[in-house]
Amino acid sequence: MSNLYDTANQLERELRESQEFKAVEERLAAVNNNEEAIALFNEFRDVNVALQQKQMSGQEVTEEDIANAQAIYQRASENEYIKALTEAEQRLNVVMQDINRIITASLQTLYQPK
Amino acid sequence: MSNLYDTANQLERELRESQEFKAVEERLAAVNNNEEAIALFNEFRDVNVALQQKQMSGQEVTEEDIANAQAIYQRASENEYIKALTEAEQRLNVVMQDINRIITASLQTLYQPK
Repeated sequence: MSNLYDTANQLERELRESQEFKAVEERLAAVNNNEEAIALFNEFRDVNVALQQKQMSGQEVTEEDIANAQAIYQRASENEYIKALTEAEQRLNVVMQDINRIITASLQTLYQPK
Repeated sequence: MSNLYDTANQLERELRESQEFKAVEERLAAVNNNEEAIALFNEFRDVNVALQQKQMSGQEVTEEDIANAQAIYQRASENEYIKALTEAEQRLNVVMQDINRIITASLQTLYQPK
């Protein structure tokens, strides 16, 4: 009899070998090989971290902060390498959501009124 | 070549056939066959829903509300059928967390600095 954990490990291997996973891997490498993309990526991350820290410490987030974050988001999403990565991530995300929905289907039926 | 979705479906079937899943199923049926357990279960659910609605609508949650919720939680968790169900749910939850950790392991390595 096949074991639950063996099957989970098999699924993980298949996920790693999937087109969707490999696309993210490749496009992430492409971002990391492009100086402009790396700079935008880091700037975007830093602006977001700063914004979150402001919110969490109860400081006021100004309209300027938000405009600033949106501007860097806009510039990052227009970069061809980051755009390609984001698209690949979205496709992989769909696969992950499908898998999660399949696996948890049994749990949902468990608590449904008969 | 085995398909990702076939494997996910296989995992779901194995999960449904696992001891941990069957234990929850059986103990849930036992709760539903015991009038006192059903009454406690429903009372617990109603008190929680009322509390959540209060919080979400911005009404003040009083100490009495919290004491009330804790008292019903205490009574429910002392009921042998509910206690047995909760224990089974915790064991199933560990399996679900393990599976989730296995499957998402590849995603975590993806974004780790090389």
